[in-house]
Amino acid sequence: VAHRVAVVGASGYGGVELLRLLAAHPSLDTEVVAAHSQAGTPVARLFPNLPGDRVFDAIDVEQLAALDLVFLATPHGPALELGAALYDAGVPVVDLSAAFRLSVDGFSTWYGEEHPRPDLAAGDPAAADDVVYGLPELDRSRLAGARLVANPGCYPTATLLGLAPLAPLLVPGSVVVDAKSGTSGAGRGTKDELHFSHVHGDLAAYGAPAHRHTGEIERWLPGELGPISFTPHLVPMSRGLLATCYGTVRDGVAAADLADALHDAYAAEPFVEVLPSGTFPHTKALAGSNGCQLSAVVDQRTGRVVVTSAIDNLGKGAAGQALQNANLLLGLEETTGLTAIGVYP
Amino acid sequence: VAHRVAVVGASGYGGVELLRLLAAHPSLDTEVVAAHSQAGTPVARLFPNLPGDRVFDAIDVEQLAALDLVFLATPHGPALELGAALYDAGVPVVDLSAAFRLSVDGFSTWYGEEHPRPDLAAGDPAAADDVVYGLPELDRSRLAGARLVANPGCYPTATLLGLAPLAPLLVPGSVVVDAKSGTSGAGRGTKDELHFSHVHGDLAAYGAPAHRHTGEIERWLPGELGPISFTPHLVPMSRGLLATCYGTVRDGVAAADLADALHDAYAAEPFVEVLPSGTFPHTKALAGSNGCQLSAVVDQRTGRVVVTSAIDNLGKGAAGQALQNANLLLGLEETTGLTAIGVYP
Amino acid sequence: VAHRVAVVGASGYGGVELLRLLAAHPSLDTEVVAAHSQAGTPVARLFPNLPGDRVFDAIDVEQLAALDLVFLATPHGPALELGAALYDAGVPVVDLSAAFRLSVDGFSTWYGEEHPRPDLAAGDPAAADDVVYGLPELDRSRLAGARLVANPGCYPTATLLGLAPLAPLLVPGSVVVDAKSGTSGAGRGTKDELHFSHVHGDLAAYGAPAHRHTGEIERWLPGELGPISFTPHLVPMSRGLLATCYGTVRDGVAAADLADALHDAYAAEPFVEVLPSGTFPHTKALAGSNGCQLSAVVDQRTGRVVVTSAIDNLGKGAAGQALQNANLLLGLEETTGLTAIGVYP
Amino acid sequence: VAHRVAVVGASGYGGVELLRLLAAHPSLDTEVVAAHSQAGTPVARLFPNLPGDRVFDAIDVEQLAALDLVFLATPHGPALELGAALYDAGVPVVDLSAAFRLSVDGFSTWYGEEHPRPDLAAGDPAAADDVVYGLPELDRSRLAGARLVANPGCYPTATLLGLAPLAPLLVPGSVVVDAKSGTSGAGRGTKDELHFSHVHGDLAAYGAPAHRHTGEIERWLPGELGPISFTPHLVPMSRGLLATCYGTVRDGVAAADLADALHDAYAAEPFVEVLPSGTFPHTKALAGSNGCQLSAVVDQRTGRVVVTSAIDNLGKGAAGQALQNANLLLGLEETTGLTAIGVYP
Repeated sequence: VAHRVAVVGASGYGGVELLRLLAAHPSLDTEVVAAHSQAGTPVARLFPNLPGDRVFDAIDVEQLAALDLVFLATPHGPALELGAALYDAGVPVVDLSAAFRLSVDGFSTWYGEEHPRPDLAAGDPAAADDVVYGLPELDRSRLAGARLVANPGCYPTATLLGLAPLAPLLVPGSVVVDAKSGTSGAGRGTKDELHFSHVHGDLAAYGAPAHRHTGEIERWLPGELGPISFTPHLVPMSRGLLATCYGTVRDGVAAADLADALHDAYAAEPFVEVLPSGTFPHTKALAGSNGCQLSAVVDQRTGRVVVTSAIDNLGKGAAGQALQNANLLLGLEETTGLTAIGVYP
Repeated sequence: VAHRVAVVGASGYGGVELLRLLAAHPSLDTEVVAAHSQAGTPVARLFPNLPGDRVFDAIDVEQLAALDLVFLATPHGPALELGAALYDAGVPVVDLSAAFRLSVDGFSTWYGEEHPRPDLAAGDPAAADDVVYGLPELDRSRLAGARLVANPGCYPTATLLGLAPLAPLLVPGSVVVDAKSGTSGAGRGTKDELHFSHVHGDLAAYGAPAHRHTGEIERWLPGELGPISFTPHLVPMSRGLLATCYGTVRDGVAAADLADALHDAYAAEPFVEVLPSGTFPHTKALAGSNGCQLSAVVDQRTGRVVVTSAIDNLGKGAAGQALQNANLLLGLEETTGLTAIGVYP
Repeated sequence: VAHRVAVVGASGYGGVELLRLLAAHPSLDTEVVAAHSQAGTPVARLFPNLPGDRVFDAIDVEQLAALDLVFLATPHGPALELGAALYDAGVPVVDLSAAFRLSVDGFSTWYGEEHPRPDLAAGDPAAADDVVYGLPELDRSRLAGARLVANPGCYPTATLLGLAPLAPLLVPGSVVVDAKSGTSGAGRGTKDELHFSHVHGDLAAYGAPAHRHTGEIERWLPGELGPISFTPHLVPMSRGLLATCYGTVRDGVAAADLADALHDAYAAEPFVEVLPSGTFPHTKALAGSNGCQLSAVVDQRTGRVVVTSAIDNLGKGAAGQALQNANLLLGLEETTGLTAIGVYP
Repeated sequence: VAHRVAVVGASGYGGVELLRLLAAHPSLDTEVVAAHSQAGTPVARLFPNLPGDRVFDAIDVEQLAALDLVFLATPHGPALELGAALYDAGVPVVDLSAAFRLSVDGFSTWYGEEHPRPDLAAGDPAAADDVVYGLPELDRSRLAGARLVANPGCYPTATLLGLAPLAPLLVPGSVVVDAKSGTSGAGRGTKDELHFSHVHGDLAAYGAPAHRHTGEIERWLPGELGPISFTPHLVPMSRGLLATCYGTVRDGVAAADLADALHDAYAAEPFVEVLPSGTFPHTKALAGSNGCQLSAVVDQRTGRVVVTSAIDNLGKGAAGQALQNANLLLGLEETTGLTAIGVYP
């Protein structure tokens, strides 16, 4: 029996990637494809990979409340409201925005707003048990019973997958994350700085040192590693994200300890591949997939480990992971409708 | 029950795309992954989207002869030999090269070689009944009984899908095909002209006026449209192919007749989408898919119709179509393991 | 002694390219950098290659009328007005828009507007003698005395340079021009279809069969070749334009005649290079330059010649050619401040 | 009076960029264009931006010894030999390779070879006075009298311009440099990993933690900042290099001190532009130029400064800087034939 689901905020890139994945999912039926600003517009006008006559629906909470699961792919503002309403109505929600990822304090610090529902802030001590930060490889224990999943951000996903197993072996205060993303991570909005003529052949940092994902990484990185330096860059490709993570290794920790920590963490994971030290993950290997590839190398001269971690920002960094979380929440096989194999070349 | 298949010539781009598609196919097991020049090399060293320990196998005809179907993705030279040996051994073959697409005369004209087996030249009057040119949308009647399928070239696929339904309505001698392809169509070989530093930001024609696909298009374009002009171009993208086809419309033929011809040809096809006249297909909408999108517009001033037809050159233009043909040959549902939805953006 | 010049409409791509070229010109001083919508904005905010404190000026016709030459790089609407005012005030103008390129009838047909000043329509029989279509390689005789130069469009420049010398040798009605441009040709305006995430890895035709440059090509192509088919495409690169031109060769004309015609036309030209038949021009070879490279090959099977002609759409296709025209108009050495050597790779 | 110069190793990207710049230089005549492996090959076959009949010359030391200056753009192996021979013959040399940049010990450590000529190792205490590391913005005092200039590497140029003025204000051992380069930095050699199909849409680190430029940066970074972490990445663009540099600020140093240090260092420099803190340099703004743009921002939470520094790797990172050094060496105006304005967009 199929589960009836909705994608709300379907006119953004997270939304269209969900539609693509859901079209191939054997047991989820996409009943609603809602987008506030585009209601009535044919989906194909925005996304030519989805030809046909389907138009974006308006958002109707009552209609959504009758479904089996709702994916929210809106900005965090509308998500705060919709997520709370649907949670209160008892509908399982996977939210791709930042609305429910942090603590109440963290939300206030990084988003400049009061969080209206401490019980729905997955990173808060006051969060309800069925409100869960959805990075299954770090902790999938509570996802089966979750009602509201805060789907991680793209940069935090790559960074946490790369650093979390190593965190106990690193010196507090030593972590630097230099991250790079394709343009789809910046959304579908037309802006001067996303014009093809400007991005083609260009590379630049942006948003440092106060990008909001910094707070999310710090909240979910295990241990007490203290504030981290995080600098994102815009790379001339449409998909793909690479986090290059530096940390000073604690005294007495050997390179083999780091390798073992990564191997132990991911040996059984279907979507994470640890590459041999000295080789480096390529974002393109993950294009269109839910996979993550990473590797670590220790620099004995400086005492630092360098971890590079690659994902598709719309896959494991957004829609793919959302579907993985939905599978877990609904009691389906975790890998259904997903692949770790990217479209290459 | 799964069918046991092989991919021979798996180290090329057609090969790796087949491996990706086969990994998700529910009823085909990839028993052999052979590549003459790369035997013993880990697949992951060439194709990072396929991590793991699998190595390329050597080519062993006896081993292949014990399988249920063999995909040949080698150059046409080895394919001539392997295809004949496997056909004689009774193993179904889908060949992605040009070895079996033309007539004996056409092969001699365009490839400068005698064809050793007229019975296996799908375009020859002497071809056996179970040797078939595999463009299902034009004629899928004989694919169920085929033993050797000559999988069409990338440029011919896009061009024929665009022009074949219109051929009876066009003036002989009037057809010009201006085609553009991403670099993966030129293969994995490292050459100066495929160096990223040279292709990035560049565009050029090549191979005109004697590109070998000209002969294939002329052989399979219905009617007596006479010689065509065909000019391919290399475009700075890794996948995607667009054929812009011009033809003079016969006297008395209306724009609506052309539209009807396209609609009638493809209304029931799962992989071909005819877009409204005045809109234009985008190659990116098909990335990673087996789909084709096309549209036609008539220029009343010049009396010409302009058809643009887009595919993924490695999908519908190679591996996707090969799998579609294999599905038909094996009696499986034609769409199994395939999608018409590209990875976008 | 330096000539004092202005760039009006300097916030578009033609404008910024003029600013770059003028900064290196030894005898032109850029006194005014005007942009109606951006007056007061720092130039560097839009164009980071021009750092510093200079801000866009407002448009002040009186101020402009005191200069030695004005480059107009606005859309054709404002150019019609400004160009007429400055012409009447006796200031030499080089206009990069379509305002003054056609006849009055052509303007009405392709732009849907009455042309207010037949005497300033360079393509009209009523045009004044000092109003000149500025493609020096076709006719530079009147540029020295010009007061208003209609700078050709990007597609017409490449097409005319490729086809004009061959026109007498071609069959009327047989010409097809399949053109491809980088995104800067579409301007700086932010639009969905120019978003990097959409253009990257994509290729599509647009605007066929009624792109406005069709009329400009037909107006200035010598001989009576009749209506042509013109189809532009958007290519994933920021600069570069290639016109692939097809025409049926008249009976009795040999391939050598075509080669001679091209050679004779351009042997002494500093900015046009005819490549050997069988090789093909690369747009990247012209990046940032005022050069054009082209070659022709005859297909004996079809009786057609295929000419490919490459330029930088912002160079020879816009700002470079404007400066070349200004040099001629002002009596300077034609090549001053210009190069035929592109930035490669 | 023109100086007669040669480019040796002219078939590489540093070489072709020199040829482009020299073609526009008013007082340098390029007498010899030598390339060992390509002698006799037309330059235009490799570099279509340089059409014409000129062929690469063979390398003839006697011929070179009669010139006024020789640019060496070969790998460091041949450069060691040629540079020494020409120096001994009294011909001024600007060498773009790593042959003469380090100390004898450093060369042995990072290049695994004995340096044959301590007197020609610019980074060695034993170096002759007229053997100079050529980064004019750090120290141009000895360039006027130099006979052998070791032209800096691309990564060191961007990194040193970004960090050198700040070095006294940073904590030893705290520096991390995360660098990103376009593919032209990897040279013209055809390799699997430089194939367009692989690089397009891809991003990866490489060579960490032992890239040879690490040693060069450590050698020339002022102060005793200890070993640094250096990780280069390959970015899908042909030109452009960005170094993102992290360092912990010493106690008591204010953000304004860092800003002042940068401003004081570069206020009078024609090729270095310090952007306002909070804005970020774009590599594309420098394409084809000899400019560098950089900015610094302090993260009070972590106590680190983040400096991003952008250049064209073939411009200020190679050929442009070589010409700047040659100008100084020959007593010409330092900026002759160079620009800080990139080709944008």
